[in-house]
Amino acid sequence: MPIVVQKYGGSSLADADRIRLVADRIQGDRERGAALVVVVSAMGDTTDHLLELAAGITDDPDPREMDVLLATGEHMSGTLVAMALHAMDVPAISLTGAQAGIRTDTSHGRARIANIDPARVHRELAAGKVVIVAGFQGATEESNVTGDVTTLGRGGSDTTAVALAAQLRAERCEIFTDVEGIFTADPRLVPDARLMPVVGYEEMLELALQGAQVMQPRAVELGWVNGIEIAVRSTFSQHPGTRIKEDRQVEQRNKVRGLATDRHVAKVTLVGVPDVPGIARRVFEPLAAAGVRVDMIVQNVSHSGATDMSFTVDRADLAKVKRLLEPIVREMDARELTTDSAIAKVSIVGAGIHNAPGYAARMFGALADQGVNIEMISTSEIRITCIIAEDDLERAARALHTAFQLEQPEEVVEASPEAAATSKMLRG
Amino acid sequence: MPIVVQKYGGSSLADADRIRLVADRIQGDRERGAALVVVVSAMGDTTDHLLELAAGITDDPDPREMDVLLATGEHMSGTLVAMALHAMDVPAISLTGAQAGIRTDTSHGRARIANIDPARVHRELAAGKVVIVAGFQGATEESNVTGDVTTLGRGGSDTTAVALAAQLRAERCEIFTDVEGIFTADPRLVPDARLMPVVGYEEMLELALQGAQVMQPRAVELGWVNGIEIAVRSTFSQHPGTRIKEDRQVEQRNKVRGLATDRHVAKVTLVGVPDVPGIARRVFEPLAAAGVRVDMIVQNVSHSGATDMSFTVDRADLAKVKRLLEPIVREMDARELTTDSAIAKVSIVGAGIHNAPGYAARMFGALADQGVNIEMISTSEIRITCIIAEDDLERAARALHTAFQLEQPEEVVEASPEAAATSKMLRG
Repeated sequence: MPIVVQKYGGSSLADADRIRLVADRIQGDRERGAALVVVVSAMGDTTDHLLELAAGITDDPDPREMDVLLATGEHMSGTLVAMALHAMDVPAISLTGAQAGIRTDTSHGRARIANIDPARVHRELAAGKVVIVAGFQGATEESNVTGDVTTLGRGGSDTTAVALAAQLRAERCEIFTDVEGIFTADPRLVPDARLMPVVGYEEMLELALQGAQVMQPRAVELGWVNGIEIAVRSTFSQHPGTRIKEDRQVEQRNKVRGLATDRHVAKVTLVGVPDVPGIARRVFEPLAAAGVRVDMIVQNVSHSGATDMSFTVDRADLAKVKRLLEPIVREMDARELTTDSAIAKVSIVGAGIHNAPGYAARMFGALADQGVNIEMISTSEIRITCIIAEDDLERAARALHTAFQLEQPEEVVEASPEAAATSKMLRG
Repeated sequence: MPIVVQKYGGSSLADADRIRLVADRIQGDRERGAALVVVVSAMGDTTDHLLELAAGITDDPDPREMDVLLATGEHMSGTLVAMALHAMDVPAISLTGAQAGIRTDTSHGRARIANIDPARVHRELAAGKVVIVAGFQGATEESNVTGDVTTLGRGGSDTTAVALAAQLRAERCEIFTDVEGIFTADPRLVPDARLMPVVGYEEMLELALQGAQVMQPRAVELGWVNGIEIAVRSTFSQHPGTRIKEDRQVEQRNKVRGLATDRHVAKVTLVGVPDVPGIARRVFEPLAAAGVRVDMIVQNVSHSGATDMSFTVDRADLAKVKRLLEPIVREMDARELTTDSAIAKVSIVGAGIHNAPGYAARMFGALADQGVNIEMISTSEIRITCIIAEDDLERAARALHTAFQLEQPEEVVEASPEAAATSKMLRG
């Protein structure tokens, strides 16, 4: 029997009625002949509630204890989905991440999956059960004793689902959420945004990294490496959603596929930094050690032995960054440290971008036509990103959506049989 | 370093302030030189909240899933106590029941501890940490994979604490709760009730079985078998509380020690049951199979081939008992099944009772003086129990408390050195 891995997000499990709806879906898919492994996130606002509990005790919770606390959210939702299935006479069992064999490294709060021992999952599937797996969590490996619970970081349930799909050689992996799929832009910003039936892995990875909230970047990466086709779909409709897959037409398509926007950014500028070797390391090593993800880095041309260095970080990390860098700025005798959290990031993503030089010019032109000032620019093979004022974000996104004709439906071209065969080999 | 096991109940952990208070206590005891293992219950009303979540999904939750759901309550409180200790710079780690090595049978919802592998606890103690253990839970034994979570039934955290104290050969086991110890009667019913500095295991077991809510009977039994001295104390005061221990003076004391009262009872009567062999089995086997605990059983003398049979059950089980027995009553051609849930149980307990015949007469006399009608009577070696109308309970309890002079302080006689040595041997 083909194995299907499904993942349901927190908003799909927010209350008893939605949990029953999820159970209905699962029952339907089971009746259509699939062996189901269902990964669940914590119910609605459970995680926030748990964070509040910890905040009531301490400002600086131990990451190991925090992981045990947060992991309870997925234990709860898992048992409730199993109970809802039982109430419909569907055999089901909920497993913790540890029971599902998900072993991770010991980086509490942002652990990475090291390996998966699928023995228990296979045993329960063989017994005809729907296997519910608590997402977002695993356990460290310990001989003889039960390992410590770890969590995989925000959105980690996506990673759980894709990793299980890869390990179990699932026929497909479906990520159920509260939107119908991946759109050409955030529909709340751009009313014309269009659902994309297919996105290539690389494009999806860039979209996710640049702010598309629907999928965790690591999950996309894992799907890519293992050739797992991922469907992003709505829990609340029958729409097939977006398929994330190897997309061989992409190279020829030569087109911007979508926009990613992100308001959760802040800019840090070190003004008048002495232009000597080793400065960048002195700035970025302590940030890395503190777990701060630095995104774009721009350094201006040096004038009279000093330079300005700007970079962006997650807005939530800004206070920490200031605390860490202020003594360093003093030590290295830079002029000052300035920050700006009223900025946003807008990116165009498309696998064809690096083949055709006109995209950057068209992007900058469209922004200029709207009077949007560009503060920083960064590019990758398949992406161009601009930092702009947060107040300009909506205007910028709509202008770019129109400039690159993203509202126009694209032809869906299925991969050729040869391409499909290649993809199978990669998976196997 | 001597190991001390402490258990804190849900009301002692109801909010952040109380959790900090508990952490203060723990820090104080640690500074006085104890290696501490701290067993926690779920915070305040967490368990009720989890039961509600399940009730929103199904009337008949799977016991295995229910255990996973309920066990999250103690995971949460354990992490919060650990975080509170960290905030005070006290090294601490929270362990789940499974991580603490507590292995149980597979009776979900009322599992019994099969054995304890203390390796992890010893390792963490050796590292100088306070070890917080999630009470009320264990895991089934599985080779290689993580076992399934089980729970030990209501009040199971007491059992966790006493079992750990026995396994770790702890110097003492302290049960912290919201009352100052074990009283001669429920102080809400009998204002004169007096705290008992010492209670023997057997007496405490009878008191707990007959309705004293402070300790779980199984925990008392386990303490008795292993010779673990248990202190029942208040989290919110420095009062030494009640010590539950081998009490060699008891035999000579020859006195009623305390009253137990219980409103959570209901009476079931089978009227006109044919007096033929095998009837009792037909009634009680299905109840046992359904997990119903039958307490007192009384069968009247037979008249013209038929008899009346009465027994008491937990009031919460009454609906289930009726559902189970109605078809059986019809099959066995009994006249009718009647039930009464407006009853209560009052017991006098004292290790000397069986040596002196006057107690029953004095008990019945005191109740008669108050006009309290006795509906059923049962006795053990150290206890006499009467079933009375619930409305009479307060009056009956006060009358008995006075009749047996329980308000008068008793002499505390320490066990002789020989008795202490015997007790040590039993423990070893």
